[in-house]
Amino acid sequence: MGDSANGLINRPILASIHTAAFQHNLNRVRELAPESKIWSVIKARAYGHCFDAALKGLASTDGFALLDIQDAAWLRQHGWKGRILLLEGFFHENELSLAQELACDLVVHCEAQVEWLERFKAKNHKPFNVFLKMNTGMNRLGFKPDNYRTAFHRLHAAGYHMHHMTHFANADQIDQSPTVGAQQELFNQTIEGLEGSTSLANSAAILWHRNALGDWVRPGIMLYGASPTGLHADIKHANLQAVMQLHSEIIDIQDLQKGDRIGYGGRYEATAAMRVGIVACGYADGYPRHAKDGTPVWVAQGNEGVVCPLVGRVSMDMLAIDLRKAPNARIGTAVQLWGDKVPVDDVAQMSDTIGYELLCAVAPRVPVAIK
Amino acid sequence: MGDSANGLINRPILASIHTAAFQHNLNRVRELAPESKIWSVIKARAYGHCFDAALKGLASTDGFALLDIQDAAWLRQHGWKGRILLLEGFFHENELSLAQELACDLVVHCEAQVEWLERFKAKNHKPFNVFLKMNTGMNRLGFKPDNYRTAFHRLHAAGYHMHHMTHFANADQIDQSPTVGAQQELFNQTIEGLEGSTSLANSAAILWHRNALGDWVRPGIMLYGASPTGLHADIKHANLQAVMQLHSEIIDIQDLQKGDRIGYGGRYEATAAMRVGIVACGYADGYPRHAKDGTPVWVAQGNEGVVCPLVGRVSMDMLAIDLRKAPNARIGTAVQLWGDKVPVDDVAQMSDTIGYELLCAVAPRVPVAIK
Repeated sequence: MGDSANGLINRPILASIHTAAFQHNLNRVRELAPESKIWSVIKARAYGHCFDAALKGLASTDGFALLDIQDAAWLRQHGWKGRILLLEGFFHENELSLAQELACDLVVHCEAQVEWLERFKAKNHKPFNVFLKMNTGMNRLGFKPDNYRTAFHRLHAAGYHMHHMTHFANADQIDQSPTVGAQQELFNQTIEGLEGSTSLANSAAILWHRNALGDWVRPGIMLYGASPTGLHADIKHANLQAVMQLHSEIIDIQDLQKGDRIGYGGRYEATAAMRVGIVACGYADGYPRHAKDGTPVWVAQGNEGVVCPLVGRVSMDMLAIDLRKAPNARIGTAVQLWGDKVPVDDVAQMSDTIGYELLCAVAPRVPVAIK
Repeated sequence: MGDSANGLINRPILASIHTAAFQHNLNRVRELAPESKIWSVIKARAYGHCFDAALKGLASTDGFALLDIQDAAWLRQHGWKGRILLLEGFFHENELSLAQELACDLVVHCEAQVEWLERFKAKNHKPFNVFLKMNTGMNRLGFKPDNYRTAFHRLHAAGYHMHHMTHFANADQIDQSPTVGAQQELFNQTIEGLEGSTSLANSAAILWHRNALGDWVRPGIMLYGASPTGLHADIKHANLQAVMQLHSEIIDIQDLQKGDRIGYGGRYEATAAMRVGIVACGYADGYPRHAKDGTPVWVAQGNEGVVCPLVGRVSMDMLAIDLRKAPNARIGTAVQLWGDKVPVDDVAQMSDTIGYELLCAVAPRVPVAIK
């Protein structure tokens, strides 16, 4: 730790990305969905884990699903020869030539895209693989069932290779409308008699709705070892491994007296004399400013470690922890903000969000080490 | 919009950074603190605005204050000849030679740093300018008053050029302990009779505690046109300009019926038939997942625009808005998430945080255009 990619010396913060954990989690998807092919979802710089690490750790996937066409270009430049799916298709007509050059599959979710593709095909381009997106109740992207078959037939008539896709709104919840069952039924009814493979399941469905997998599953968060629900308890027995570990160090120690307050707004007031460690990690590194007092932070102690509670409001570059359980901590002592010692979901839960948001939010100023 | 730095085509999201607004806000600091020199605080990639834009817009500052020594190296490589202050000093002894080569001033906040500097000086290096940090009640970094004078005399005896610094915990609040007055009094008492200039005031103190400015002020958030309190109302008459504008476009439209739900968890339920626009911006772009229904989003309408409310939970790459006030909106219509039309503080307030966090969190996948 401490050496940045460019050889200069850093603040003692580091995100280490464990590619063996990626491979392990991908194998878990194969075990859970042995009949399906896998689109590994790596949008948002692989949920903040960086593309280099994803390409290395997930090399045995059937395809990568992502958002930005320049990320598809990056994958091709770095030797990826498997399939690539653009999850929102294309945003403007002029992306189509590049998408074809990069041999991308396209999600098509709106009328404008259908028109663009009809024009494109009329110019004698090769046909794309199209995953036509159906809005079965999520009400975000896609064609409602009434319009779905029309869109399908238009693109099919234009010569495209057609497949079917939908997305579940509540695969991580029980009995929340629209349910997986209701969405799946609508999907199956609508595509009845149409050719093409199907893609339905996100991580939550892969884990908990094994009858809703389809021909291509689309795991995201589970590949990173975090929970679709945001609760670590829900994946405790799923045998997934945390891929990212966020590390830092104690850079200052303050001895507080009873009644002393910490940081902006003085949110935490010491109830007794205590040592407080100041850690080089703040919300501008991606640690959540919403984190409450008591959020777990792991502190190295000899060959072991101990979990200490966060105290006071997280500031831009620092946070404070109560060191009463870590009497040997000193300046330079290693801490883990999340990873194998502290599930990112536990930090997220104490911050009223989900691990997804925290992983994606790790800031560019945090150096990354691929292990 | 839509062209990325590398010439490829992007998702329609863009952060435009207005350097004239930087210059305007810096001029406001000069008007408010005419007797003081200015450390412009540009840590965290200039609060997410990128260093290129800060160097251009804030070129008339007296110095830049930042955290990472490689960012100081970047400034020197890009021609900055003025002063640079490392706000947390150095993290390890081996950074000192580079800090000297880059002609940085150092904040010194802990005993270990004093020892390292004594050893460094003993090797006949040139002395640094040191801003010695006093903990006057923030309880984050710095020496308590009892130890402050000892540290001062040790470094002074070693030949360093000594200056005095503290940081206010509550300059943005009224009557919260520790108060600006109490911290300032402790600071002044402790440095009595010691040589060296002083640095106390952050943005909140510059705006609201004009008797606590000191020789060097340290504006941060106000340079970016956002509020130290997180409430836009508090800077409404301060004549500051938003530097960042976060733009996107509508990429899909859904016609909802009464009772339909939107997005994950179905948080928003349509109370009547309505058109909903899906915007290419989500929490993996840095938009807060905590944003509540009703968070303002500006939508272009002809030559004007209208503010539409967010509906449903923000997802990783998208958010939804109620388009009933924007009947002309269609796929491709421009939206502003924050900037001159929607104060970032208003989005933050609807997300239980402050503008600082949102600005810093703009993700690397969002292209930046410097204007």
